[in-house]
Amino acid sequence: MTTERSSADALFAGNRVTLAGYEAKHFGWSVEGRVATITLNRPERKNPLTFESYAELRDLFRQLAYATDVKTVVLHGAGENFCSGGDVHDIIAPLIDLPMPELLMFTRMTGDLVKAMRHCPQPIIAAVDGVCAGAGAILAMASDMRYATARSKLAFLFTRVGLAGCDMGACAILPRIIGQGRAAELLYTGRSASGEEGHAWGFYNRLCEPQALLPEARKLAAELAAGPTFAHGITKTMLHQEWTMSIDEAIESEAQAQAICMATRDFGRAYEAFAAKTRPVFKGD
Amino acid sequence: MTTERSSADALFAGNRVTLAGYEAKHFGWSVEGRVATITLNRPERKNPLTFESYAELRDLFRQLAYATDVKTVVLHGAGENFCSGGDVHDIIAPLIDLPMPELLMFTRMTGDLVKAMRHCPQPIIAAVDGVCAGAGAILAMASDMRYATARSKLAFLFTRVGLAGCDMGACAILPRIIGQGRAAELLYTGRSASGEEGHAWGFYNRLCEPQALLPEARKLAAELAAGPTFAHGITKTMLHQEWTMSIDEAIESEAQAQAICMATRDFGRAYEAFAAKTRPVFKGD
Amino acid sequence: MTTERSSADALFAGNRVTLAGYEAKHFGWSVEGRVATITLNRPERKNPLTFESYAELRDLFRQLAYATDVKTVVLHGAGENFCSGGDVHDIIAPLIDLPMPELLMFTRMTGDLVKAMRHCPQPIIAAVDGVCAGAGAILAMASDMRYATARSKLAFLFTRVGLAGCDMGACAILPRIIGQGRAAELLYTGRSASGEEGHAWGFYNRLCEPQALLPEARKLAAELAAGPTFAHGITKTMLHQEWTMSIDEAIESEAQAQAICMATRDFGRAYEAFAAKTRPVFKGD
Repeated sequence: MTTERSSADALFAGNRVTLAGYEAKHFGWSVEGRVATITLNRPERKNPLTFESYAELRDLFRQLAYATDVKTVVLHGAGENFCSGGDVHDIIAPLIDLPMPELLMFTRMTGDLVKAMRHCPQPIIAAVDGVCAGAGAILAMASDMRYATARSKLAFLFTRVGLAGCDMGACAILPRIIGQGRAAELLYTGRSASGEEGHAWGFYNRLCEPQALLPEARKLAAELAAGPTFAHGITKTMLHQEWTMSIDEAIESEAQAQAICMATRDFGRAYEAFAAKTRPVFKGD
Repeated sequence: MTTERSSADALFAGNRVTLAGYEAKHFGWSVEGRVATITLNRPERKNPLTFESYAELRDLFRQLAYATDVKTVVLHGAGENFCSGGDVHDIIAPLIDLPMPELLMFTRMTGDLVKAMRHCPQPIIAAVDGVCAGAGAILAMASDMRYATARSKLAFLFTRVGLAGCDMGACAILPRIIGQGRAAELLYTGRSASGEEGHAWGFYNRLCEPQALLPEARKLAAELAAGPTFAHGITKTMLHQEWTMSIDEAIESEAQAQAICMATRDFGRAYEAFAAKTRPVFKGD
Repeated sequence: MTTERSSADALFAGNRVTLAGYEAKHFGWSVEGRVATITLNRPERKNPLTFESYAELRDLFRQLAYATDVKTVVLHGAGENFCSGGDVHDIIAPLIDLPMPELLMFTRMTGDLVKAMRHCPQPIIAAVDGVCAGAGAILAMASDMRYATARSKLAFLFTRVGLAGCDMGACAILPRIIGQGRAAELLYTGRSASGEEGHAWGFYNRLCEPQALLPEARKLAAELAAGPTFAHGITKTMLHQEWTMSIDEAIESEAQAQAICMATRDFGRAYEAFAAKTRPVFKGD
């Protein structure tokens, strides 16, 4: 290793962490290969979120921006449900009558979780079985791809607790996934959408049998983790970045972003493998 | 009532009107419960719009922003058609050879109707049977949700009269409802889309039998009117407001908007009802 | 012709070209009626693109902005495939190890082709059979409408060569056609989508039998070419222009754009034909 390389390592030390050994307090966390699995794990209550789990998820997704050992994330729930959203006892009860600055502190914390999910470079795959409601529906929506079961029940049920549909980015993101008209119905009424509806609408990328759901999600995650992961991170960045660009601006931004990827070694590896009639082995640099 | 409360009432007097007694001149208007129904009612001509009905609809939707007695709006047509668009005799004929400032006066008036529909807080439900063409298709598109019949015929037929597809916001709004490729086809060709196509594409939220169409649309309207209507208005505002925000901006805006809703009494009512194992009775404040 | 008219002709000479006699070097080009057909014609390699064909396509679409004799464009591939994308030997090999300024020169050239396709006034109809991969998928995506066959295979396979999905505008445009979730899957995984999937998702406007594909695409192109072509050009401009406008801005822009169209002779022709109970003969002015 050259001196220059060592200097670079020192320069970037603060931007490189490993998370395989991370010990999560408020949900399950495991890393196999370069695929991390987050398990919302209070199945007796259908895996609700609490103030603590929101904050820890936010902080973990922020750390994932610097992780060198995790290339994709699978998000699922223990038992036969994904997530029932904010816990009525642990979250909704304390929120009643909070002063405004603290209400905003809460809604910003939940929004920061979605921001962190969109800003980390790892593609996130939600594996959705059973109840996927409220903030749980948001976590699925904020993922990059979604596998589900036919029996899954997706509900943006904020309206049922007297709130608006505009929670954690839903009025911006959901319409871009399923269309403005369907999103309006889900957000105004809070009704459940079935797995088949979600699949037909493009919310879910695939429907799986319940026992195959987590394995299939992990299989996709492993395939992506074996791919050109730096380029995947750029894809994710650009899907985010171009959200409100004009077409011409987006095209110039992509010309720059793809030129960056053409300067990576993975691009050369792919060509060499093609020339040698073998499969490329990507390394993410 | 405290003095402060009385002062507030005075302050907001100009922002509170009742519309149950409104007497419409160029279409039908009725209010039942807190649901208003607008009936385009020239069935012998398939309910075309005229200069007068455009202007009155625009003014009425602007007034709805201040209405305290109307919480949702159902928009439909008399007989077996929704609306055939701008009347060829009453509108298109006079437009030929108008000076440019007056042409723009007309296109701005029609556009202002869509703006008023998007700016009032009430969710608007279009009930679409039969012909839904030209400006009629726009009125359906500019509504929040759409129920229809299988025999409905949706046509953005501006091209058939020598005009462009960019009418009253169609090139911006339609692609977000049904996708850019399908919208392009409808706008370039002016072809009719069937009820089944419209439903598969997410333009219609539901297909109903003709005799069930208006009752089902009113049932949905009544359910929403019995909900947290202030929050519904915020949902509508944010669906509009976040149209061109970046994801991060949208999330911050929603954090603020939802914090406002958490400070409403309806949010407390929902929790109290949950704790008491009853159904919440929302009041919209 | 009046003197004024002659002066105008002189003024606009630089903006009026005819392309029926254009002799393309790197693809097929023919004009029948006012419909041009571009044929990617290296069928033995599934019609890949080369540096030369990119540049010539870019320049041709830029010229189309000034063409008076071409009103719509059909884009297809010779043989049973649409386009296999950038040629591995002719493009990918030379790109490896190019200096950054030249990489950017390449990605800007490909992006400029998409910009030119979106900026010319002619609606572009892609006729997609067989392989439609990489830059080929982009050309289909950058068209206005798409007909395909059930056996077509759509693949944004940049990830397979170690690159990101953000190529030539894909992260901005594809999500608006098929939804953010489906676009993410195609761009992250590079997997093939079948004709039926593409049709269900709104990427393809119609599926045709292979032998009917090109005739059907040309039929649509001829119908549009016989329509109010100036107005079609405005429709295309506005679909592009309103991409990131707010709803209110879009409505004002459309009020202006449609007022322009109401001042065209085609608008009068349509009304006169209606009054005379004949079919209008549009002339595009």
